[in-house]
Amino acid sequence: MLDFEFYAPTKVVFGKNAESRVGELVQAQKCKKVLVHYGGNSAKASGLLDRIFRSLTERKIAYVSLGGVVPNPRLSKVYEGIGLCRKEDVDFILAVGGGSVIDSAKAISYGLSNPFDVWDLFMKKQNAQAFMPLGVVLTIAASGSEMSNSTVITNEDGWLKRGYNDDLSRPVFAVMNPELTYSLPPYQTASGCVDILMHTLERYFTPGDTFDMTDRIAEQLLRTVMENARILRAEPRNYKARAEIMWAGSLSHNGLTGCGASGDWVCHKLEHELGGLFDVAHGAGLAAVWGSWARYVYRTKPSRFAQFAVRVMDVPADADGEDALCLKGIEAMEAFFHEIGMPVNVAEMSIRLTDAQIEEMAKKAYEGSGTIYGFRKIEEEDMRRIYEMAR
Amino acid sequence: MLDFEFYAPTKVVFGKNAESRVGELVQAQKCKKVLVHYGGNSAKASGLLDRIFRSLTERKIAYVSLGGVVPNPRLSKVYEGIGLCRKEDVDFILAVGGGSVIDSAKAISYGLSNPFDVWDLFMKKQNAQAFMPLGVVLTIAASGSEMSNSTVITNEDGWLKRGYNDDLSRPVFAVMNPELTYSLPPYQTASGCVDILMHTLERYFTPGDTFDMTDRIAEQLLRTVMENARILRAEPRNYKARAEIMWAGSLSHNGLTGCGASGDWVCHKLEHELGGLFDVAHGAGLAAVWGSWARYVYRTKPSRFAQFAVRVMDVPADADGEDALCLKGIEAMEAFFHEIGMPVNVAEMSIRLTDAQIEEMAKKAYEGSGTIYGFRKIEEEDMRRIYEMAR
Repeated sequence: MLDFEFYAPTKVVFGKNAESRVGELVQAQKCKKVLVHYGGNSAKASGLLDRIFRSLTERKIAYVSLGGVVPNPRLSKVYEGIGLCRKEDVDFILAVGGGSVIDSAKAISYGLSNPFDVWDLFMKKQNAQAFMPLGVVLTIAASGSEMSNSTVITNEDGWLKRGYNDDLSRPVFAVMNPELTYSLPPYQTASGCVDILMHTLERYFTPGDTFDMTDRIAEQLLRTVMENARILRAEPRNYKARAEIMWAGSLSHNGLTGCGASGDWVCHKLEHELGGLFDVAHGAGLAAVWGSWARYVYRTKPSRFAQFAVRVMDVPADADGEDALCLKGIEAMEAFFHEIGMPVNVAEMSIRLTDAQIEEMAKKAYEGSGTIYGFRKIEEEDMRRIYEMAR
Repeated sequence: MLDFEFYAPTKVVFGKNAESRVGELVQAQKCKKVLVHYGGNSAKASGLLDRIFRSLTERKIAYVSLGGVVPNPRLSKVYEGIGLCRKEDVDFILAVGGGSVIDSAKAISYGLSNPFDVWDLFMKKQNAQAFMPLGVVLTIAASGSEMSNSTVITNEDGWLKRGYNDDLSRPVFAVMNPELTYSLPPYQTASGCVDILMHTLERYFTPGDTFDMTDRIAEQLLRTVMENARILRAEPRNYKARAEIMWAGSLSHNGLTGCGASGDWVCHKLEHELGGLFDVAHGAGLAAVWGSWARYVYRTKPSRFAQFAVRVMDVPADADGEDALCLKGIEAMEAFFHEIGMPVNVAEMSIRLTDAQIEEMAKKAYEGSGTIYGFRKIEEEDMRRIYEMAR
């Protein structure tokens, strides 16, 4: 096991009607003016935005709002937010939405607080020195961005989807009411569940020795998400299932499931190019590459995939040898993806990848990440091969 | 499941030689002068204190020090610390030790930051409004105080042992090097393990509906601690086992294992009186009352004790009915306590409780807590009976 740091300072307020406490939570930040940042029409149509505005007004907190964040959130919207906040002298950002909105809000905050173009962070040309405080009202269980130190933004110029991680960006509070996720369409719910699973899987598949405490939390989180994702197929308004998944989503990406391990993150890197080029749902894109990645790398340390098969996927340990055990674990996960309506390759997202597109994605992914020393060392050529397997 | 808040802002720096980063971590707090608070001679004799002083000096951080904190830390030492800090104009406290030292440091911080006698907090006469920031270098895995919002102090005037909980008191950082716990005597190591188990058990045994995500983390934490406590009986210098227990200790009491549940805490209340009167090791005192508490209450919700028996204690689910299952789970936990050298009743701590002492403890416990609405409603008479069962 490796030395580690764990830092998850976000105050979580979890439960029914939790959003009614937004005014109180923002007030505790002693800010002058809030940017309420949101996505499409659902937050408006559901009345959520109005409830939040009311909660702020009741506490006499001034605010401006900016909607229109799209999935795979765009750099242009970030610039728009930075401009608005400068003009309005905003000093606190409230993200009302899922990962796209939170990530857009994080990027706005970086842009407001640092003396360089915010995209320089994502191109690894600069490091952040400061961050304007951010709170979250979560409406989609998926990204874990409500407690994480990550943000991912897509630059329309070249359709580059790039991430930046810094503990500065962990939100000061996250309001989580599972009821707010009732209205998500099944595909988006399932895609969110895959994203949650992957935040733990990307930490779980690590080449070195691991920490039992971390492994066991990770394994139980994966089981909890899969069980409850199945329940939601039949009962999208099951409060407990929504709650289990929402909380698992935060724990999956706040660092807890990676303590003492180095992590992999290859699937995320590969998906970023799919997301950048084809605007696919993030979780669906992850599901589409995971099996191919797993088959490509599992022989590096079969014992790890065997442990996954037995402890997470309930493959009987006395299967036909370790290699078969690994493959059965991978197949079981893919069967689960299918069960909840997720793809296990790119074609199942109705995308016919050309050789040229694969070449382009591998090139861009490698430019973005360089050699990845994850579960197995991954170079540009490996990326190309995994895309080919996943096409 | 209940609504909940989760707030664990402590930055954890975990691993070998982690204490060398103390200077850097304190410097980030931008303080003028530090109180280094510690216990007995072991921190001195091991050279740890010198390493910490050196780390502070290298960063040109001024400090004063105050040792002499004893197990079941005393109010008189807290007053001494408050006086010293006022005189020396201290604005940051660094606790170097285990739960006793951290709790003493927390009480000093409360005393420095609030305009009333600090004991008023513990007598529930006042609420804290402020807290001087606190960092921790942990040397004993047990109390979880390095991430928790709790502190427990013993007032020698009447030997009252009382706790106070407030999120203000969560340390800003906790440095955890498992090697620092190598030299703990087996009895203290085992007592610490019981304390860790109990912080989760007190949350686990809750009468209402529970959260699967929380249950599963709790169950795996309990299993991890038990497995590694056994390893440490034979190999006290096993790094991985020390690390598993140290991290489990923090997770057990930072709130994670109680999300969505109401908790019980009766055993802690009962132990506080034993600790106050007889100065027993906290974990040992908890082990001495747990089985009696469990037998007294399990019929309130046998399904919960049955789940514990099966998932945590590996009792076969097809035992002779639910009642037998519950009792076998309790017996298995007591067998584990014995296995690691812990008592399962008060007599095994060489204390012969008189009727008058039981009467006195029940009275004081009830005065301190009132009726406890935990796994089962507990009044003074119930406390008396549990003490009698545990004597």
